[in-house]
Amino acid sequence: MLKEMLKNLREKAPLIHNITNYVTVNDCANVLLACGASPIMSDDPEEVEEICALCAGLNINIGTLNRHSIPAMRLAGRKANALGRPLVLDPVGAGASRLRTECARELLQELRISLIRGNISEVKSLALGSGSTRGVDADLADQLREETLPQALRFAREFSRSSGAILAITGPIDIVCDGERAFCIRNGHPLMSRITGSGCQLSAMSAAFLAANPEQPLEAAVAAVCAMGLCGEKAFSRMGPLDGNASYRNYIIDAIYKLQPEELEAGARWELA
Amino acid sequence: MLKEMLKNLREKAPLIHNITNYVTVNDCANVLLACGASPIMSDDPEEVEEICALCAGLNINIGTLNRHSIPAMRLAGRKANALGRPLVLDPVGAGASRLRTECARELLQELRISLIRGNISEVKSLALGSGSTRGVDADLADQLREETLPQALRFAREFSRSSGAILAITGPIDIVCDGERAFCIRNGHPLMSRITGSGCQLSAMSAAFLAANPEQPLEAAVAAVCAMGLCGEKAFSRMGPLDGNASYRNYIIDAIYKLQPEELEAGARWELA
Amino acid sequence: MLKEMLKNLREKAPLIHNITNYVTVNDCANVLLACGASPIMSDDPEEVEEICALCAGLNINIGTLNRHSIPAMRLAGRKANALGRPLVLDPVGAGASRLRTECARELLQELRISLIRGNISEVKSLALGSGSTRGVDADLADQLREETLPQALRFAREFSRSSGAILAITGPIDIVCDGERAFCIRNGHPLMSRITGSGCQLSAMSAAFLAANPEQPLEAAVAAVCAMGLCGEKAFSRMGPLDGNASYRNYIIDAIYKLQPEELEAGARWELA
Repeated sequence: MLKEMLKNLREKAPLIHNITNYVTVNDCANVLLACGASPIMSDDPEEVEEICALCAGLNINIGTLNRHSIPAMRLAGRKANALGRPLVLDPVGAGASRLRTECARELLQELRISLIRGNISEVKSLALGSGSTRGVDADLADQLREETLPQALRFAREFSRSSGAILAITGPIDIVCDGERAFCIRNGHPLMSRITGSGCQLSAMSAAFLAANPEQPLEAAVAAVCAMGLCGEKAFSRMGPLDGNASYRNYIIDAIYKLQPEELEAGARWELA
Repeated sequence: MLKEMLKNLREKAPLIHNITNYVTVNDCANVLLACGASPIMSDDPEEVEEICALCAGLNINIGTLNRHSIPAMRLAGRKANALGRPLVLDPVGAGASRLRTECARELLQELRISLIRGNISEVKSLALGSGSTRGVDADLADQLREETLPQALRFAREFSRSSGAILAITGPIDIVCDGERAFCIRNGHPLMSRITGSGCQLSAMSAAFLAANPEQPLEAAVAAVCAMGLCGEKAFSRMGPLDGNASYRNYIIDAIYKLQPEELEAGARWELA
Repeated sequence: MLKEMLKNLREKAPLIHNITNYVTVNDCANVLLACGASPIMSDDPEEVEEICALCAGLNINIGTLNRHSIPAMRLAGRKANALGRPLVLDPVGAGASRLRTECARELLQELRISLIRGNISEVKSLALGSGSTRGVDADLADQLREETLPQALRFAREFSRSSGAILAITGPIDIVCDGERAFCIRNGHPLMSRITGSGCQLSAMSAAFLAANPEQPLEAAVAAVCAMGLCGEKAFSRMGPLDGNASYRNYIIDAIYKLQPEELEAGARWELA
């Protein structure tokens, strides 16, 4: 089922509006180009509605939120909702500060979010209004592993039902679910946690997959998560003896660029939970 | 004629002040270092005049403009004008929002711009105050191809005359012209459109070429455009089977770093129109 | 002595709060991950105290300071002081504008800075309130070379004594000193000056080394400076005939990622002055 998702993305080449952090913004732009989409970044309240209206999807990432970008997130989000465009929320660091937790929760209350993409700590903070994320990394105790999977699945299904958003909770194992179906994904490589922005890139790319596959948002999200993980594996297999995380970062984006629909179909390791 | 331009740039090593977007700013800094210049980025109104006064040229890029950077663009631009330093304007996304179109048009009215570097849609929006750019990519119908070249040349010459700026309109074919002479440039590679920031990099590098060649700004702009395109070709020829747009991005900057004056002279594909 | 510093860093994996410029922020994040730490970037006054409280160290870099980030620097700095966490100040471009010079000097007066990392021009501007830095590059006349070393050492010791901060003054030769001991370090490669952000990366990494080695901040700073220089050498030895500064940038971060404690011990070229 996933190959169609990527084919549609490559054919439709959606333009994606990103209000994102300045740490990984360049990688987000390049990964969008790699997967077949086009990026535009804009976060001034005066123009975000117009920019959003030109685009097929919106990606909001609170990684370096500030008092100016928050109103822009609201305005752009409302416009995306009004136009029926997919809206991805990446609650980077929710739980690490009141500003982040509250901003993410307010966006979730005020807007119809299509997809939430975060680690388990961030998503829990978003759901529960508290939590103790260690910045941008998932708490170890909380990490999505085989032992914690059943519990995480229960939480994810419930939160998806109550929020109306698809969830993509990423970690050693990834969960993608809506209120009815849940997928467990076992692609990826541990080294992905040693580059900055693999999560941000996935969020941006998810917006592109959703924009190109409006009838099947859950499958589109699964495709995005599998694509990122599979490319993390492919990139790792390319590593030479002198390569570290900087080369790995480039190899992942390269792998997204090279990824073929059949290859995604064959390499994706997902199962219905 | 182009080799002198690059020789002068490498010898004079101009410091270039950039007020640019946060998406491609790192690439702009590294490409300036690669071509032989030095970058400084500064966009706070309180300091831009002082910073500008230290520099040999100014590059204004509106890719992620906001209410704070716009006044800084004005202040720095006036200072560059007062000091007789070259000023490059990259109207990223002009036409995509009223804020961008108006900001770019006001800068053009208030300041003496030495060089405008953009795609055809952006430059048309700047000239005509309207247009329909698809974000940062040129409209397909508008793209600079052989069929649309005569018409684009007419537009470019006229706009250069009325604005007083040299134009560098880039696309599958590039036009560089002032009110009297027009050059068509056929360097480059289609893959350059699959990395973010090749246009931004060219704008930054153009400021460096102009700063190092104050007597021949048109030739300097031609040299910058040919250098970027030629390095796009060289970088492509280096691509391995696993390389995608992330590696390509690095290879282009590497190629600028390695580019020799004689090589630029020999590889540049320009003609007077 | 240096291998312990790196071992501790890899074991403790400190989370480092960065208020830094948007030019090199991605490299700072990736170099922190490469050396074994974790980065979080946050510069909104509303949240910096909370973020800082989660972290083991703070890195303040004024490379693209603005009226909003300056109050955030103050708030975060006070919090780091209150919690006894190491605080690194990178006075990028001090001397290039009054805003930068005064901001850096005020931070130094109001806060207890653990380590100042800059080039000789920047550090002199910070100490003397004037100076003539050429943007982010050290004045040639001022550069730390064998001839100017004795004089620079005198200045550094005195300024360290009066400021209470460890100094890491980098250039062709590096000085790391507190009020009592001074180290000269002769690692590094000239090509490091042709990438943007090697200084910023070192500042971020220094915060991590200090956070992981609270009892030996001077040795920790020496380890950070030696590690950066040694990895600059290792990265250079990896350069192929087509590689330029973009690949070099990646190779340096890769080398940090690969750096082993014993290798640092063996490759570091330092001496007590």
